[in-house]
Amino acid sequence: MLTSPSLRRRLATQLDPSLRDQEGLSGINLVVVILILASLFLAIIETEPTISDGHESLFWSIEVAFIMVFGVEYLARVWVSIENPENSSRWRYMLRPHALLDLFTLVIIILSTFGASAFLLRLARVLRVLRIARLGGYSTAINLMLGAVKKRRFELNISIVAAFVLLIISSSLLYLVEAHHQPESFGSIPRAMWWSIATLTTVGYGDVYPITVLGKVFAAFTALSGIGLIALPTGILAAAVSEAIQEGKNKTKSDKID
Amino acid sequence: MLTSPSLRRRLATQLDPSLRDQEGLSGINLVVVILILASLFLAIIETEPTISDGHESLFWSIEVAFIMVFGVEYLARVWVSIENPENSSRWRYMLRPHALLDLFTLVIIILSTFGASAFLLRLARVLRVLRIARLGGYSTAINLMLGAVKKRRFELNISIVAAFVLLIISSSLLYLVEAHHQPESFGSIPRAMWWSIATLTTVGYGDVYPITVLGKVFAAFTALSGIGLIALPTGILAAAVSEAIQEGKNKTKSDKID
Amino acid sequence: MLTSPSLRRRLATQLDPSLRDQEGLSGINLVVVILILASLFLAIIETEPTISDGHESLFWSIEVAFIMVFGVEYLARVWVSIENPENSSRWRYMLRPHALLDLFTLVIIILSTFGASAFLLRLARVLRVLRIARLGGYSTAINLMLGAVKKRRFELNISIVAAFVLLIISSSLLYLVEAHHQPESFGSIPRAMWWSIATLTTVGYGDVYPITVLGKVFAAFTALSGIGLIALPTGILAAAVSEAIQEGKNKTKSDKID
Amino acid sequence: MLTSPSLRRRLATQLDPSLRDQEGLSGINLVVVILILASLFLAIIETEPTISDGHESLFWSIEVAFIMVFGVEYLARVWVSIENPENSSRWRYMLRPHALLDLFTLVIIILSTFGASAFLLRLARVLRVLRIARLGGYSTAINLMLGAVKKRRFELNISIVAAFVLLIISSSLLYLVEAHHQPESFGSIPRAMWWSIATLTTVGYGDVYPITVLGKVFAAFTALSGIGLIALPTGILAAAVSEAIQEGKNKTKSDKID
Repeated sequence: MLTSPSLRRRLATQLDPSLRDQEGLSGINLVVVILILASLFLAIIETEPTISDGHESLFWSIEVAFIMVFGVEYLARVWVSIENPENSSRWRYMLRPHALLDLFTLVIIILSTFGASAFLLRLARVLRVLRIARLGGYSTAINLMLGAVKKRRFELNISIVAAFVLLIISSSLLYLVEAHHQPESFGSIPRAMWWSIATLTTVGYGDVYPITVLGKVFAAFTALSGIGLIALPTGILAAAVSEAIQEGKNKTKSDKID
Repeated sequence: MLTSPSLRRRLATQLDPSLRDQEGLSGINLVVVILILASLFLAIIETEPTISDGHESLFWSIEVAFIMVFGVEYLARVWVSIENPENSSRWRYMLRPHALLDLFTLVIIILSTFGASAFLLRLARVLRVLRIARLGGYSTAINLMLGAVKKRRFELNISIVAAFVLLIISSSLLYLVEAHHQPESFGSIPRAMWWSIATLTTVGYGDVYPITVLGKVFAAFTALSGIGLIALPTGILAAAVSEAIQEGKNKTKSDKID
Repeated sequence: MLTSPSLRRRLATQLDPSLRDQEGLSGINLVVVILILASLFLAIIETEPTISDGHESLFWSIEVAFIMVFGVEYLARVWVSIENPENSSRWRYMLRPHALLDLFTLVIIILSTFGASAFLLRLARVLRVLRIARLGGYSTAINLMLGAVKKRRFELNISIVAAFVLLIISSSLLYLVEAHHQPESFGSIPRAMWWSIATLTTVGYGDVYPITVLGKVFAAFTALSGIGLIALPTGILAAAVSEAIQEGKNKTKSDKID
Repeated sequence: MLTSPSLRRRLATQLDPSLRDQEGLSGINLVVVILILASLFLAIIETEPTISDGHESLFWSIEVAFIMVFGVEYLARVWVSIENPENSSRWRYMLRPHALLDLFTLVIIILSTFGASAFLLRLARVLRVLRIARLGGYSTAINLMLGAVKKRRFELNISIVAAFVLLIISSSLLYLVEAHHQPESFGSIPRAMWWSIATLTTVGYGDVYPITVLGKVFAAFTALSGIGLIALPTGILAAAVSEAIQEGKNKTKSDKID
């Protein structure tokens, strides 16, 4: 290999945040994040025919450029990975989940350019959008927030179980009283669940709703339960955030005393 | 009887959580919970004609198997019940609410196989779904949560009364101004209540809505009140959960001091 | 007058909660509350033609009975009012807001039996429903809750002002971009406000919604602002309730120390 | 100039809140606020043809009066601005953002009376409505509230990022499964975003909704995520307000001790 180990070392500190002793994103990683956001934006607007019609070759060229850049980036990350003592070999790095995701996304997008059925094309486009998931690794802030939420995992799980029980009970009751009048919308419990989700979350599209008196009474109680369903996790999260702030303060205080 | 009392004793510690000195579900109860969830899932998808059509006999055989298993389970619970000193006799156990519910569900499902009117059949199916209620007894977590909610019962009741008063006032006003223009939807206060519930809970199906200017003004105030209706119980629950966490901490602290 | 002052005194302690030294409702007031709830229920279901048609004379007789009972109750309250030192004369009592409301409701309902235009009839029915307001005086719990809300009046007012500003800005923007395409729904700012209220409160009837791209972009920001509009008063109320609980505890503690 | 400097001084203390040593609005500023609210109200109702048709000249005269009053007010503010040491010259004052906004609004409204295309007319009307923004400067309360919100800016930003990611993922999935069946509503990711916003914010107009089974399953998860999207900022704001109240109390306490 022509390059000296010191180049690989310097590139590694640029690409791998855990090898960097300064805070914030390194120059190269900042460019990568901006490129991901740009490819995300292009992938989204490309799906809109009124924008992309007549400019297919332009979008195609840009996408090929993105594939090449992200391909080079992938190879560079594999090459420098052994600088990090956590990776005993390059294979070990390549088998890490985020590296597999990177490779998988690249391969699918390249493959999609050969087979061009409408669904596969849409899938490839959506995969391009899902490059957003790669941003997760750069953000410590999101990890901090997830930590606060995880701490109240137990209470939030109960909310989810409660939501699930409410969903089953309300769908069953609406199926019982409305199936005869609206077989298309309430003819089975899974069908009634679509209505039940829209009501419990207070979305209320209005494509299906009960028409019998008893159905409306049950729907009223379902809608009121939906408020509880919103209130419970909100209350839990409010308490979790409040506690996190309090702990942060106490820590500062005891630091001062020490 | 052929079986020795020690078998009944061992079975009792398996079936009755209060006789068990270890935490968590016993082996047999875990199987029962899984069977209830499986029967729940089957009962739900069976109602969907696109799934069950042509497989009626399969679903029927599985349901018969479930009836037999839950029947044996019921008899076993009655048999071992006198091992628990709380039950002075087997009759006493059989008259406890959850045992009555078990028996009632079993009997209705068996009966429903004879008379097969469409509504009775749906009722039997829904009862099978309501086997979910049996899971309640296994969960101490849900009981803990209910305890926290019960502690602020008084404040939550006021929210319900406030919701009720808002419901009556808004339905009355909409009936007053819209009855003449939309007799089908606002021709009586109970009819206007259907609209009022959908608005106060912010579900907003859109099947009925005011068309007069005054009706829209009243509807706007109803929708804004609906936000208060969501905010009040959410605030109360947030405070309740926050308080429960605080108490848990203080308890831990004083335990340490002792 | 034939009755002795001691009867008036005894009746006063029954009718006027502030003269009673025991907690809870007195026997007569309990009966009055039940009668108000019964008249409320009857007034509501009477408006539904499928229930009241053919039973008009029955509903009429019951209403006459209610008018007579509440009339006697009103006269009794006026008669005993001077037992309370707060009322220097019976006129003073009769001019208190709740006493005026009582009299006003009675008079309108009696008058409505003569003129019977459809609207006046509906108005009289709604006034009967509004007898619910009389229950307010009996509830100290609701007053306590209102006290907690009043304490954060200032912050809640800012939420209302913020809602008002959001309402005006979003209606103006939608009027600007949608008026040309949907003159019926967005042809003026007041018309666009109907859409804006439904969106900001997340009710979303779906009777009106933007169809232009720019209109949808503005609507998206309006809907997201609506979440803030729900979050702000909820957060304020959560803090207010939490504070009220905390204060209650501290008070109990200092009571113990004393 | 005929007027003595003392008049300019006195007018400055009336117009500039920072030169006033008393709390609350000065007499002239109170009149200005009332005039802004009045012009706001007139600008809103003027857009409604059923109100303004036939009274165009009346509305026109009132608007000319408002332009003249606000013009005089603007000139007066510029004239007295040098009384405030913060403004080294009148030009400096005129280049401050709120002064530029005042001038810009005045000029656009005057210009709009010459060119009268339908859109420009609507724009001018909306600008008149946006005079509401001028009220911002008078309110210290709103600034206080914004301060509390800003303190939790970091957590609220994470909520917005989370909302953005949810929006992109749910639109992509719905585009994937529904584009073939509903090209008009889900034929591109930007089109699917309109549905996604309405669902995540639980507005749910019902103009577009998935019709395939998979689309409904994804929509159900989107609607449930929407609850989290409401719960997170609400919890953060609740904690922020709670903290602000607590700090206010501690400050009062330590003030007492000192």
